[in-house]
Amino acid sequence: MSSAQTASHDVVAVGNAIVDVLAHADEAFLESHGMAKGAMTLIDAGRAEEIYRAMGPGVECSGGSAANTAAVVAALGGRPAYIGKVRDDALGAVFRHDIENAGVTFACAPSDNGSTTARCLILVTRDAQRTMNTYLGACRELTETDVDEALVAASQVAYLEGYLWDEASAKAAMKKAGAVARAAGREVALSLSDPFCVNRHRAEFQDLVKSDVDILFANEDEALALFESADFEAATNALRPHVKIAAITRGAKGCVVIAGNATYTVAAQAVYDVVDTTGAGDAFAAGFLRAHTMGFSPEVCGRLGNMAAGRIITHFGARPERPMADLYVQATA
Amino acid sequence: MSSAQTASHDVVAVGNAIVDVLAHADEAFLESHGMAKGAMTLIDAGRAEEIYRAMGPGVECSGGSAANTAAVVAALGGRPAYIGKVRDDALGAVFRHDIENAGVTFACAPSDNGSTTARCLILVTRDAQRTMNTYLGACRELTETDVDEALVAASQVAYLEGYLWDEASAKAAMKKAGAVARAAGREVALSLSDPFCVNRHRAEFQDLVKSDVDILFANEDEALALFESADFEAATNALRPHVKIAAITRGAKGCVVIAGNATYTVAAQAVYDVVDTTGAGDAFAAGFLRAHTMGFSPEVCGRLGNMAAGRIITHFGARPERPMADLYVQATA
Repeated sequence: MSSAQTASHDVVAVGNAIVDVLAHADEAFLESHGMAKGAMTLIDAGRAEEIYRAMGPGVECSGGSAANTAAVVAALGGRPAYIGKVRDDALGAVFRHDIENAGVTFACAPSDNGSTTARCLILVTRDAQRTMNTYLGACRELTETDVDEALVAASQVAYLEGYLWDEASAKAAMKKAGAVARAAGREVALSLSDPFCVNRHRAEFQDLVKSDVDILFANEDEALALFESADFEAATNALRPHVKIAAITRGAKGCVVIAGNATYTVAAQAVYDVVDTTGAGDAFAAGFLRAHTMGFSPEVCGRLGNMAAGRIITHFGARPERPMADLYVQATA
Repeated sequence: MSSAQTASHDVVAVGNAIVDVLAHADEAFLESHGMAKGAMTLIDAGRAEEIYRAMGPGVECSGGSAANTAAVVAALGGRPAYIGKVRDDALGAVFRHDIENAGVTFACAPSDNGSTTARCLILVTRDAQRTMNTYLGACRELTETDVDEALVAASQVAYLEGYLWDEASAKAAMKKAGAVARAAGREVALSLSDPFCVNRHRAEFQDLVKSDVDILFANEDEALALFESADFEAATNALRPHVKIAAITRGAKGCVVIAGNATYTVAAQAVYDVVDTTGAGDAFAAGFLRAHTMGFSPEVCGRLGNMAAGRIITHFGARPERPMADLYVQATA
């Protein structure tokens, strides 16, 4: 397998397979439960039970960062695959249904024992910000043997979720996916996922970015955290020599794309009705990767990324409600 | 218990306790699966599996007609209670969490064996119409013994969902709730639920309306079906002598309220962004009943009903996303 022409999938995403439970909450709720607003915090089963008992009526929908990205790639007409671990329980069946029927090849068998399917308790505040509390459950059972080598080798890009780094066996699975992709002449993309996640694994993430990553996705906070920098330009210049492309999102300001010596600043879409920012970064990565695998310039990639993110934040939840094929005309104009 | 002043709850709602699974679909999907657009169809476990396999990625949220009504009464600042049967499974736990944390007293123990918690597979088409396929599951286990007599006697209005009439034991529970309410000097409200449901039970529903119902809720199609009439005015006049109040919704045209010799035509709120009409009738009943139990005139009741319905159709799902206390000022202006 040496040429992108023979790929059966444009993107194979590897990540934590999670069902989201979204509810509205006010700032006082976050404070009284000691939550860091805007962050993703790992919680155990007891804490999950405690938060769920306290939070308001919810909406359940499939989530997981890289899984959301795969679903948006499909909504953009791509042919994505996904590797992530659920349990063979009711929520696991929901996850499988949703990702498969979104048009994603779900290439990972459920576990038949151990922890239940992962849940992320997401509190959405009035400002449309989301604060996430993740009970990893069955995600912790993801191992190297779950990585289908032929599938990864047949995918143009292996997209890896930084969150996987929190668990030793999932980290091994992620490393294997990257190694298989590189050996097959494919590209490896990494999302830094969360500034707290970067802080937990800074040295390893730096090594990874320097040696094994072609395309890096980060938001501004994550990029700064990676090099413990307070200066955006310094952080991007520190990245420049190590990756082919770095796409750094800046919320309402859009994104900055670095490719070799070039730097592209791409303004965000104006979005008049931001409902819930859950999944904005995941959708950005999807739009970017979809355009990239179609051969578009880094600037068009950034634009399609911004537009996919702009679409996902107009509704509750991180998965697309409808196909997004209408975005191409404007992104390439 | 003889006076409304001593009531601990404004509304006790009795209905099928259901978790909704909502997905977008096109008209061709409804046709190819033989679905009657806009209707609620009862399905068995096999058909539920078949439809779920075929339908797109979904969003799970608690539903059930009378339960939605109870949740909206709570969002309007009321003190509702709810009686309906779930199983002690994962979806049953979701249902309980959502209704309790919406501020509703959930007064019914889950069953610990038999069918799973009910699911309603809802296909939402581009025109924001919903087509519902209900697997009743544990709802079929609702019996007379689930009706807490003291609770019903302590509630200003017993609100009964017509859908319960499809199952013999649930029907017995519904009849008991009505009898207890009347004996305690409370009011009995009935929702006709669905024109197909009316067609299935026309004679019994006519008897019920004539002898046991104070407040009747119906949409135009259900009111016409009840008297097999093609003429709206004839149908409303046929109802007039039998109930204290009839509130008949007419979609975008608002509602007509009949009370004795008086007829009030109440225009709908203008809603510019109709996303999903699931739960519009349920929310109407909630707004109406809440205003009614506060002593407002039938016209104000109709207005608060319209406004609650107008709010619920601006988002996916039938449960309120936020408190609705802001609606009173305009409804009483």
